[in-house]
Amino acid sequence: MWVTYGLIVIYCKINTEDGNMIYIVGIGPGNRNYITIEALNTVKNSEVVIGSKRALKNFEINGEVIELTKNLKLELYNFLKEHLKTGNKKNVSILSTGDPCFSGLLKTVLDFDFIKKEDIEVISGISSIQYAASKLKISSEDYRILTLHGKEENLKKLLECVKNKEKVIFLPNNIKRELGYLINNGVSKDITATILENLSYDNEKIVTGPICNLINENYSYLLVCVIN
Amino acid sequence: MWVTYGLIVIYCKINTEDGNMIYIVGIGPGNRNYITIEALNTVKNSEVVIGSKRALKNFEINGEVIELTKNLKLELYNFLKEHLKTGNKKNVSILSTGDPCFSGLLKTVLDFDFIKKEDIEVISGISSIQYAASKLKISSEDYRILTLHGKEENLKKLLECVKNKEKVIFLPNNIKRELGYLINNGVSKDITATILENLSYDNEKIVTGPICNLINENYSYLLVCVIN
Repeated sequence: MWVTYGLIVIYCKINTEDGNMIYIVGIGPGNRNYITIEALNTVKNSEVVIGSKRALKNFEINGEVIELTKNLKLELYNFLKEHLKTGNKKNVSILSTGDPCFSGLLKTVLDFDFIKKEDIEVISGISSIQYAASKLKISSEDYRILTLHGKEENLKKLLECVKNKEKVIFLPNNIKRELGYLINNGVSKDITATILENLSYDNEKIVTGPICNLINENYSYLLVCVIN
Repeated sequence: MWVTYGLIVIYCKINTEDGNMIYIVGIGPGNRNYITIEALNTVKNSEVVIGSKRALKNFEINGEVIELTKNLKLELYNFLKEHLKTGNKKNVSILSTGDPCFSGLLKTVLDFDFIKKEDIEVISGISSIQYAASKLKISSEDYRILTLHGKEENLKKLLECVKNKEKVIFLPNNIKRELGYLINNGVSKDITATILENLSYDNEKIVTGPICNLINENYSYLLVCVIN
C-alpha cells in the first residue's frame, strides 16, 4: 500500500506462496462449462475444499473435501472458526454458486464475526442473472437487478419498479408469494413475466406468460424472474 | 416451442450440428484465466473467430481469424452482413470483452438491421464490474450498477444516486468529465471513490481517494469506478 496526494494506491495482491488464504470461489450457475479457469485452478491447488455435493462434483480436487449438508451457514462458520484458530497454513476454497459478490457467499462469510477482509480472496463467477440474460438475449444494463434472497426490503422496490414500468430481473425468494404480492398491490395480473428454472442444467426450463398463470405453476428453488 | 394455458415453455436450445450460428462470446475482463470452459470450447469449434487482437490472443483457434482493428462496429457489421448473405453454413464466434449482456456486444449486434435474435447465441462472461467487486470484496446487490458507455442519460442517474447516498458501481465513459459533473452539480469534492484500472491485467491498479484528487490523475480506458 502506497499513499500519495491523499490517494491510496493498492496494487494487485500477490498470493503468498505458503498458503493460509480462504478463497471464495464463484462456480457459475451449475453446469461445469460455465466455470472459469481461475476457479478450476484455485480449487485444484487448495488443501481444503468446502461446498455442497452438487458444487463439489464439478471440480478436480487434490485436497481434503468437506461436504456441506444441511445447515450450510452454520457448518461453514464452525469449520472456518476452527480452521483460523489452529493457525493452519492451508489454502481453503469455499465453493459459491453463481458469483460470490452477487447474492453469494461473500456476504455470508464477511458476516462471520471472526473473519477479516484480508483473510479472504474472491474469484468471480457467472451469476444466474447473467446466464438468464444470455438465454433471453437481453442487455442487463436496461434492467433493474434485484435479489430477494435475504433482502426482504427489495420486495417493495420490486413493486415500485414494476409499477414504474422499469424492466426488472430478480432472484425470487418465494416466487408464488412475490407474484401474489405484486397482484395484491395493484399490478395487473395480465403483465407478462418469464421464469427461468434450473439454468444451465439438463432440466433447464424457461416459461413466459401472464403472472396470473405463472403463479399457478410449481417451480424448483433455482429461479430467475424477468419482467419486461 | 410449446404453448399451454397461455404459458410459453422454451426448452434449452440444442445447437444444430451443421453450423450457421453466430456466438457472441463473453471473454471476461481480459486475463485468460477468467474465461469459462464454454467460451474456450465454442471458440475452438468455430469456423470463424472475430475479435480485437487483445481478445484473440487468449484463445486456441482452429478456424479463420478476423481481427477487428479501427472501427470495430463497422467492420463487424460488414462482415456479418456479407456472412449471412452468402448463406454460409459456418459457426462464427464474436469475442466480446466482459459479459456480452452487460454493456457488451449483444446490444451492438442486435442493433444491426439484418440480425434476428434466432441468428445468435450468447455465452456469458465475467464483467469488469464483477471483477471489481471481487477485488474490493463488496456485494454488488448493495450497489446501484450503471454504465455510462453509450448511455448518456445515466449521468443524471449517477448524480441522483450519489446525492441520495446510494452506493454505486459504474463504468465510466470519461471519468474526469463525470467526476467533474458530480462536483459541478453539488456533490462534495471530498467524497471518496475508488477507481479500478486495467483489471485482471499485469498493470492492474486500484486507487481510492477524494474525487477532487482522483480527477487530477490520468487513466487508461479500461475503468470501473465505485462510490460508497
